[in-house]
Amino acid sequence: MGRWEPNAQERLQHAAMTLFLERGYTEVTVAEIAERAGVTKRTFFNHFTDKREVLFAGAPAFEDRVVQYLAEADDGLDAIDAAVMALTRAGTDLLANYVEYADVRRKVIAASPELHERNLIKMSSLAAAITRALDTHRESSRAAAFAAQAAVTVFTAAYDDWTEDTTAEFDALMQESLTCLRKAVHPI
Amino acid sequence: MGRWEPNAQERLQHAAMTLFLERGYTEVTVAEIAERAGVTKRTFFNHFTDKREVLFAGAPAFEDRVVQYLAEADDGLDAIDAAVMALTRAGTDLLANYVEYADVRRKVIAASPELHERNLIKMSSLAAAITRALDTHRESSRAAAFAAQAAVTVFTAAYDDWTEDTTAEFDALMQESLTCLRKAVHPI
Repeated sequence: MGRWEPNAQERLQHAAMTLFLERGYTEVTVAEIAERAGVTKRTFFNHFTDKREVLFAGAPAFEDRVVQYLAEADDGLDAIDAAVMALTRAGTDLLANYVEYADVRRKVIAASPELHERNLIKMSSLAAAITRALDTHRESSRAAAFAAQAAVTVFTAAYDDWTEDTTAEFDALMQESLTCLRKAVHPI
Repeated sequence: MGRWEPNAQERLQHAAMTLFLERGYTEVTVAEIAERAGVTKRTFFNHFTDKREVLFAGAPAFEDRVVQYLAEADDGLDAIDAAVMALTRAGTDLLANYVEYADVRRKVIAASPELHERNLIKMSSLAAAITRALDTHRESSRAAAFAAQAAVTVFTAAYDDWTEDTTAEFDALMQESLTCLRKAVHPI
């Protein structure tokens, strides 16, 4: 195997998810993931700190994309609508790559308190990035943080819905989730 | 020292917070905390799994109290108002015991990513407990989860405000925070 390994990260992700689907997350070792992807264990550790991180490999790129879409948002949009729009667009981009694995990923995370915690931390980091982006443009810190956290809550619920029915329109799921949140926070 | 150590947990908490205030969280060892509290290291580990947990010692009792206040809430209250009421009452009880240490605790947690993560997990557990309590009574799961998460967000912000001015009325801080969240989620 040469030193140049095209798309090693992506191949490792696909290999890992396929193995998790076949045999369950806890049973699969890093060595097996590397073997299935046709790379060395060392290459695995060049891309991921541990097995757990494979499940969250898309998070930094997703966060960057959300921030980029926010920067392009119409200044006339309210913070919450801008954040929901950015998460809808970035989510739609992301989910296209995860159709096959969405269900196994959700089940793996739901079954492990440790992975659930890791997911919480990633979502908190995402909310913080959205807060910083909103804060610069238009809002007081606290209002920005509240809008960002609400938008991430909406996204998490819509993403769960989507993993249960990957034929659904993500945009429609986001709007339903937002409507539900608004009613919960401000019942009339 | 006899085997019977009255209020060992509380004494350990106070000793720990006093030492954190004097010398900084990272510098203080478990042995020093135990010594200051007049107990053995073994007694420390009977009460806490590690130094970090001392900062969150009140969390389970707080969670129980929130759930109890929710059970007493008027059935006519909306979920979000019931959750905010329960957090306000339990928060008021709790904060009375933390006036001296609120500021050092906030600074210690803010300075450590690891403690920040632990705090996130505690808040998520609190939101889950509130969701279960609301869910039984009145709401669909998702509406209950959204109301619970929003109420915990409101509480976290009000608690931060209170640590910066411990003479403020906690009830008023909760209402201000709720008003800000409602505006952020549903701008008019």
